[in-house]
Amino acid sequence: MRIYYWAFFLLFSISAYSFAQEDICIGKKYKVFSNLLQEKREYQVYLPNSYNKNSSDKKYPVIYLTDGESFFHSLTAVHKSFFTERASLMPECIVVGIINTDRTRDLTPTKSAYRRDGTREEGDKELGGGAGTFARFLIEELRPLIDLGYKTSGENILFGHSYGGLFVLSVFFQYTDKFDTYIAIDPALWWDNAKLAKDAEYILQTKQFSNKTLYVGIAGGKRPDNRYIHFSVANVFLEETLPKGKEKGLLYYSKVFPDENHGTIPIPGMIDAFRQIYVTPNLRNKFK
Amino acid sequence: MRIYYWAFFLLFSISAYSFAQEDICIGKKYKVFSNLLQEKREYQVYLPNSYNKNSSDKKYPVIYLTDGESFFHSLTAVHKSFFTERASLMPECIVVGIINTDRTRDLTPTKSAYRRDGTREEGDKELGGGAGTFARFLIEELRPLIDLGYKTSGENILFGHSYGGLFVLSVFFQYTDKFDTYIAIDPALWWDNAKLAKDAEYILQTKQFSNKTLYVGIAGGKRPDNRYIHFSVANVFLEETLPKGKEKGLLYYSKVFPDENHGTIPIPGMIDAFRQIYVTPNLRNKFK
Repeated sequence: MRIYYWAFFLLFSISAYSFAQEDICIGKKYKVFSNLLQEKREYQVYLPNSYNKNSSDKKYPVIYLTDGESFFHSLTAVHKSFFTERASLMPECIVVGIINTDRTRDLTPTKSAYRRDGTREEGDKELGGGAGTFARFLIEELRPLIDLGYKTSGENILFGHSYGGLFVLSVFFQYTDKFDTYIAIDPALWWDNAKLAKDAEYILQTKQFSNKTLYVGIAGGKRPDNRYIHFSVANVFLEETLPKGKEKGLLYYSKVFPDENHGTIPIPGMIDAFRQIYVTPNLRNKFK
Repeated sequence: MRIYYWAFFLLFSISAYSFAQEDICIGKKYKVFSNLLQEKREYQVYLPNSYNKNSSDKKYPVIYLTDGESFFHSLTAVHKSFFTERASLMPECIVVGIINTDRTRDLTPTKSAYRRDGTREEGDKELGGGAGTFARFLIEELRPLIDLGYKTSGENILFGHSYGGLFVLSVFFQYTDKFDTYIAIDPALWWDNAKLAKDAEYILQTKQFSNKTLYVGIAGGKRPDNRYIHFSVANVFLEETLPKGKEKGLLYYSKVFPDENHGTIPIPGMIDAFRQIYVTPNLRNKFK
């Protein structure tokens, strides 16, 4: 009988050993019911390395991230790369990604049937227009939950790419005081025949943007479905319209990426945004 | 009595709901005992998106990654960014990261007491020299385990930064046929008074490198502790020594990153390596 026990023990040890494994996790996913959107929404939370080690009162800025399912992995990786053994190049942040349910509805500020090239064809349906409600979900429903559950500093950053970038800009213009820093990567400026870029001119004249930071990165590489309107709008918007915000206190940073297209710009855009907003001004202060 | 049940049920429902959470995981960590290194080693495994969905016989190349604790998160993020709704820009890979125990011992090919600037001071101890054994651990102990446990295609890629980049180059020269593609980001060429770069000249004349791919990325931005030897060695190595491998069948790609330093180059280096190795040649084939 004894030999069976040993055989069993040996077999158990081997399998226990070779199956010994541990998940490598970068965050947690939660659900919340939104009264504003009348649906259940999923969001992701990344906590920086020092968060749990730190029993002190240290508080953290929060980066709110649209298209969480696409960019949570890469944005947290890029963010972490700003912390080396030698230096912390930006403040450690909590990252909150929001998972899409109806991306076009939530991330576009106006209803529109215009195509990318600024044309409309008979039968084209109007889509979108829910960015205002989605912004209120972020600000009025999700943020209080985050501020309640985590050690947040009150500094809030909003990040988005493509429709997400358009959303960031629409929040920047409509709810200016609700976030401190806005990062828009290759925003879909063509939406609604470039209405947002056209309206921006007027809003920049009438509003104050003191202590607000805006970064816009634009992909210079052409893609078959990026029609002319996007590039011409982007150029004027970046080089003529937005710089006017500086007179109203805006800290404005931008870059055109000649070697990136709409699909390849996100990671280089994140790196450059963090560098221009956090690293370069710090170096400037250090050496002045 | 009944009301207690209801109160309990309600309380339970609320807590279950607000605590509903799910880990966001990017891989698993395993342990294996190495006879060659005479110690337990941890390694990480990332499986590409299609891996488990795919019940077919699809097999995947494997990227072996040194300094897994530093680069597993970012390398898997960068790799994923090459897959969009529109296009797969490189082959989907399994990523295997190796966690360090004694980084200097495992990643440097020779014992050395030389400093970064090529000098030696009395009392400086000799360190390192274990890259040969560590390479054998990867090739003879870890790889059979990976090939047994996963749907691998037999194509193997080796990636490393800094000491890890030096390791990649030392494996490239010593065990040339053991990997298909070698990616070295800002390798620590100064090690042992630049012995590897000096020896490379001779090895490139005597060995064949048919069907082997080598990418070397060098940070052009200076850092206080990057002394002159590194840059002068890197320039000659990149522009004169390695191109000679092309006569021996080597596919050689390189880039100097003027805006990156040793600490900031990893992610831009990964992006450029994958682009030069996979995306550009594919585009070239497509349009020729």
